[in-house]
Amino acid sequence: MTESLPPNANPAESDPAFPLHRWGKIEMRPTVRIRDNAGLALAYTPGVAQVSAAIARDHGLADEYTWRANLVAVVTDGTAVLGLGDIGPEAALPVMEGKALLFKEFGGVDAVPLCLATRDVDEIVETIVRVAPSFGGINLEDISAPRCFEIEARLQACLDIPVFHDDQHGTAIVVLAALRNAARVVGKELGDLRVVVSGAGAAGVAVSRILRQAGVGDIAVGDSRGIVHAGRDDLSAIKRQLAEETNRAGLSGSIESAMRGANVYVGVSGGSVAEDAVAGMAPGAIVFSLANPDPEIRPEIARKHASVVGTGRSDFPNQINNVLAFPGVFRGAFRARASRITEGMQLAASEALADAVGDQLDADHILPSVFDPLVAPLVGNAVARAAVRDGVARRKD
Amino acid sequence: MTESLPPNANPAESDPAFPLHRWGKIEMRPTVRIRDNAGLALAYTPGVAQVSAAIARDHGLADEYTWRANLVAVVTDGTAVLGLGDIGPEAALPVMEGKALLFKEFGGVDAVPLCLATRDVDEIVETIVRVAPSFGGINLEDISAPRCFEIEARLQACLDIPVFHDDQHGTAIVVLAALRNAARVVGKELGDLRVVVSGAGAAGVAVSRILRQAGVGDIAVGDSRGIVHAGRDDLSAIKRQLAEETNRAGLSGSIESAMRGANVYVGVSGGSVAEDAVAGMAPGAIVFSLANPDPEIRPEIARKHASVVGTGRSDFPNQINNVLAFPGVFRGAFRARASRITEGMQLAASEALADAVGDQLDADHILPSVFDPLVAPLVGNAVARAAVRDGVARRKD
Repeated sequence: MTESLPPNANPAESDPAFPLHRWGKIEMRPTVRIRDNAGLALAYTPGVAQVSAAIARDHGLADEYTWRANLVAVVTDGTAVLGLGDIGPEAALPVMEGKALLFKEFGGVDAVPLCLATRDVDEIVETIVRVAPSFGGINLEDISAPRCFEIEARLQACLDIPVFHDDQHGTAIVVLAALRNAARVVGKELGDLRVVVSGAGAAGVAVSRILRQAGVGDIAVGDSRGIVHAGRDDLSAIKRQLAEETNRAGLSGSIESAMRGANVYVGVSGGSVAEDAVAGMAPGAIVFSLANPDPEIRPEIARKHASVVGTGRSDFPNQINNVLAFPGVFRGAFRARASRITEGMQLAASEALADAVGDQLDADHILPSVFDPLVAPLVGNAVARAAVRDGVARRKD
Repeated sequence: MTESLPPNANPAESDPAFPLHRWGKIEMRPTVRIRDNAGLALAYTPGVAQVSAAIARDHGLADEYTWRANLVAVVTDGTAVLGLGDIGPEAALPVMEGKALLFKEFGGVDAVPLCLATRDVDEIVETIVRVAPSFGGINLEDISAPRCFEIEARLQACLDIPVFHDDQHGTAIVVLAALRNAARVVGKELGDLRVVVSGAGAAGVAVSRILRQAGVGDIAVGDSRGIVHAGRDDLSAIKRQLAEETNRAGLSGSIESAMRGANVYVGVSGGSVAEDAVAGMAPGAIVFSLANPDPEIRPEIARKHASVVGTGRSDFPNQINNVLAFPGVFRGAFRARASRITEGMQLAASEALADAVGDQLDADHILPSVFDPLVAPLVGNAVARAAVRDGVARRKD
């Protein structure tokens, strides 16, 4: 047998992504070697029986004597994958493998993809609860809104390990870090900023929440029907809550109209925004246009009118990428053996990430490079300390 | 923070197994490195989208472009772990990690432990079905009888990937291989042998079945109440079937009484057998006493009366250990992209394993060493060829 593809198996073989992804991008490796019968007797039967017996008496020892101490499950149902949407669990697997790869490469965290053949909220929750003894944490990924909110909340209510929906909180942590530093660049305080968030899905909701917690002056959130406000009768439960918590200015109408005089635009919508709308923002405007691969507004256009511009892309300055957050967040949570990831831990992660820029800070360097090897350790330390402070750490040394 | 254990966390720390097992025995490792933005763009977004889109159109491509091509889930509910019994999913995790380690070390197969927080048959089946898109095969482990039989059968009926209960079939493959070679040593054909199997749990049932398929003359199986025969009114469904398929001689009464004049004793019971019973077997007797860590009869005692003696232990000749089978079985199944592991594949594995001894064959060398690096490739090749022959291979080159 050879390892060649059958003829015509894939016409896109000329795309360099295919050879890179062949047979996957991750593997499982032993961390102890078994060279002889003595090693086998220690790592497997009969030696392992002593370890299992100790864990049977005290389940917490599984965090000391198994790989789950450092292991996150990357769980999806394949309903909201990248720009592809609802492609199902099999097709989501290469993306979850990529995520697992990033967890290890950037944070030293072990991760295993779990792609679920169900999109029923009850079934997703019960499935994750049943496999949970095998893992130290759960990273939810690419699960469509609004189901993602309920799944995360129900899981965290019944599990005593961290549950983290990265599309929400990873994005929120990095956007807040970027905004902290962008505000420094333009000489403003977070409390002085009026922000317009375009998009009220997983990312938009979480970004709005963390900005509010961080003390941002006012936030207006828009969806495809315009600004979310209490007077609308078409709001889901989560958007009704958004309407209560945001938009103190009482705006209504279009997102672009809300941008007039605003200090900050955060695009997490996948839509587009006109140049005129950016031109009409307040002086020293900040524009984060995060839709991938096509930003809501091209950064070179936005930069004509705004003082700081960031995108999700690596080929422009100020890449606002979740990979700056999630590896360090779980690294820190595991280090503290945290039972959950609190808002305090997320804010701490965001501050540490902003501070990691150091002296490099300017309008084109509001975040560190995703390849900066100090980012995950700095974020991890801050998250672990915050876990102790918030009383969710089982390990405080 | 240091990596030291909190004081008194584990009084057994002096046992060398504990430092070896600390933080677990396996890790997840990237097989591609991401060194720059170009690499990130290829391994993750946007490059991965092409691969995911191709799999969305043809789910089978997941066996070509994800790690599930070589990935088995090692699944347990922790109800029948080693000699420890029903210790639950957390305590089972070190054992499943050990199994995963052996899969990779001996067969080059990636494996991930899944310890389930349920012991309900329906829930176990539905949980595994829901996570199945993430895996290329399912290895069931340490699930108590008789639930293990139903779980395996129901899973294989609804999944098109191999489902293999190692406590049954791994044991059966290795016992048959050992018996083939032991019969050669004593100059007998399988069809001439009368076998007594002590134990009618997972291993006993599977051993009895594979011996029958291989053409062994007659087999009597005993449980704690003696020989299984059609006249008993205390038999479970699986034992009723055993009674129909075995014991052509119509034996009843104790296991030891059935051993009188028998050619082969296979102990998979965890009980004990008296020296007199072995002494009363036919000339050229074969004794496999596989209970761990304490064989049903000490091998040095059995050897006084039997021509060939094997145990599960590494400190005596003829170690009959599942690790000789399962890594090669899945290696071959994955190579052929088999949809299941047929009886023909198990018989082929057993023959290849027996043949792997080669010229070394004698009364103290009826099986190769578990450290013989040729075993898994030889078994794997035989299993892959048998998969093609049995029409369950999706890859035939």
